[in-house]
Amino acid sequence: MSVTFDDIIEAHKRISSVINQTPVLDSRTLNQILSASIYFKCENFQRIGAFKFRGAYNACVTLQQEQSAKGVITHSSGNHAQALSLAAKLLNIKATIVMPKGSPSVKINATRDTYGANVVLCENTIESRTSVTQELIEKFGYTLIHPYDNDKVIAGQGTAAYDLLKTVPDLDIIIAPVGGGGLLSGTAISAKGINKEIKVYGAEPERVDDAARSKRSGKIESNQRIDTIADGLRTGLCERTFRIIEKEVDEIITVSEMEIIEAMKFLWERMKIVVEPSGAVPLAVILSKKLKVEGKKVGIILSGGNVDLTQFFKILESNITI
Amino acid sequence: MSVTFDDIIEAHKRISSVINQTPVLDSRTLNQILSASIYFKCENFQRIGAFKFRGAYNACVTLQQEQSAKGVITHSSGNHAQALSLAAKLLNIKATIVMPKGSPSVKINATRDTYGANVVLCENTIESRTSVTQELIEKFGYTLIHPYDNDKVIAGQGTAAYDLLKTVPDLDIIIAPVGGGGLLSGTAISAKGINKEIKVYGAEPERVDDAARSKRSGKIESNQRIDTIADGLRTGLCERTFRIIEKEVDEIITVSEMEIIEAMKFLWERMKIVVEPSGAVPLAVILSKKLKVEGKKVGIILSGGNVDLTQFFKILESNITI
Repeated sequence: MSVTFDDIIEAHKRISSVINQTPVLDSRTLNQILSASIYFKCENFQRIGAFKFRGAYNACVTLQQEQSAKGVITHSSGNHAQALSLAAKLLNIKATIVMPKGSPSVKINATRDTYGANVVLCENTIESRTSVTQELIEKFGYTLIHPYDNDKVIAGQGTAAYDLLKTVPDLDIIIAPVGGGGLLSGTAISAKGINKEIKVYGAEPERVDDAARSKRSGKIESNQRIDTIADGLRTGLCERTFRIIEKEVDEIITVSEMEIIEAMKFLWERMKIVVEPSGAVPLAVILSKKLKVEGKKVGIILSGGNVDLTQFFKILESNITI
Repeated sequence: MSVTFDDIIEAHKRISSVINQTPVLDSRTLNQILSASIYFKCENFQRIGAFKFRGAYNACVTLQQEQSAKGVITHSSGNHAQALSLAAKLLNIKATIVMPKGSPSVKINATRDTYGANVVLCENTIESRTSVTQELIEKFGYTLIHPYDNDKVIAGQGTAAYDLLKTVPDLDIIIAPVGGGGLLSGTAISAKGINKEIKVYGAEPERVDDAARSKRSGKIESNQRIDTIADGLRTGLCERTFRIIEKEVDEIITVSEMEIIEAMKFLWERMKIVVEPSGAVPLAVILSKKLKVEGKKVGIILSGGNVDLTQFFKILESNITI
């Protein structure tokens, strides 16, 4: 296998002093509802607000000196863009992020201003994204840090489950969301590396169920639609992540859009934490009873908390009386 | 003084096995902005979503058997109503909550259904609230558990700062919001009991600045307006809390409505935690630079996280495409 448990241990050593030591939270009410013990690894409290910082930093810190000198590049308008920008900044590496035109200006500005990355806009098609990125790589010798099709990134993401298992060693089950499969692959290698008996499940929106279908058919399937609220999970698997998931993950379980919102609601209203829709998908799997967890100890990777709250606070402000 | 440091230690022993051990969180970004170390005691993660459970439980568990047998009563539509209901339920005590007609049905239902309290509606005036409560006390012999004009309640609220100081012993400053003054009184007794050198500040909305004016004038002042977004802080001090605040609190600092929203925004967007406006007031005090904290270790009691998110999730649901 491309990524081993030892790779995760190595990644863990490299990144531990730089990442946030995120807390593990639980909920009395939830445990009562499900007659189980559920532990949330709060990667929404991670730097840049998502687990992605783990993988991006592990990828950047292991570059050859020649590569570091030239800089890194990726195409993303999501959490990986900010994760790579911050990781590169901390290591004094130049980062270039290719983003589609029409990306929210909040995201463009955060990536550029907060993390000092060089943002290059492309057309909103896969072709343009790929060709613009390729052109820049050829011209400047940048190293591509793919959001998940990268061993170092996968090993980095696996450290979240590794940290969770250090806090709660006797888990029966771990559930992580699956989009491109970086987090789920890393989680599975971590969990099975520590204890073969731990069941590892992927949680996926019904509307973007390529991973569930790929696992059943034994080959990579693609998505017909990507209109899920869980915008971090719209991408499909690659060979690298599929091979790991095929071997190490027990099952992929899908949930509806309403089930995702219900889970998100529970996390915000009852647990008082801001979690993005993608991060709520694993809880949706157990709240909807699609996975029975009675009597079990279950770990969930709360992947991130980057939600656009502009509108919410605008309404709040407009309510101030004079 | 009516409440002593020993009372807080006693309260702490009584309630420790029943409350949530809430985490202390910090933010790299915030510490950088302020050149200080800020520690948030997350009482938004407390049972019923606010510190109020500490005081209510301490008050119920110390009742005489005769009192317990007859039941407890309070008037509140806020966090204290749910705190008292839950505390009473856990101790098999009958609880009656007097709420004004027109209280959000969510709150009435939560108090009644989730916590099994007896809800009695009154007119939305102080006179009606008082007379309805008094009538019920005379008729049924209930014991009134006032939200803050009660020594046991104050001692219970003080355990939040006590727990915070166990986690971070060398704080220079502690800030708590002030409404009726129960939390601030308890916080001051705790902090000064552990270390006389710790500065204790109350944080208050400008629009409801009775505590700030009372502290300056040396007598209890009332509020001309109560239209602050920080709805948990609309009440004024009572003699019991004023006497403690006069003696033990260093200063009350006030902030504007916009400053409260800015602080709330930081907590939600950057720290990914759901905090109600009242809970954001202490952060507003330091973010607005009304209190200089450079180089200091500052503890903040994040008092609660009960915000109505119905509208927010309704919009999210309506955005699901078909």
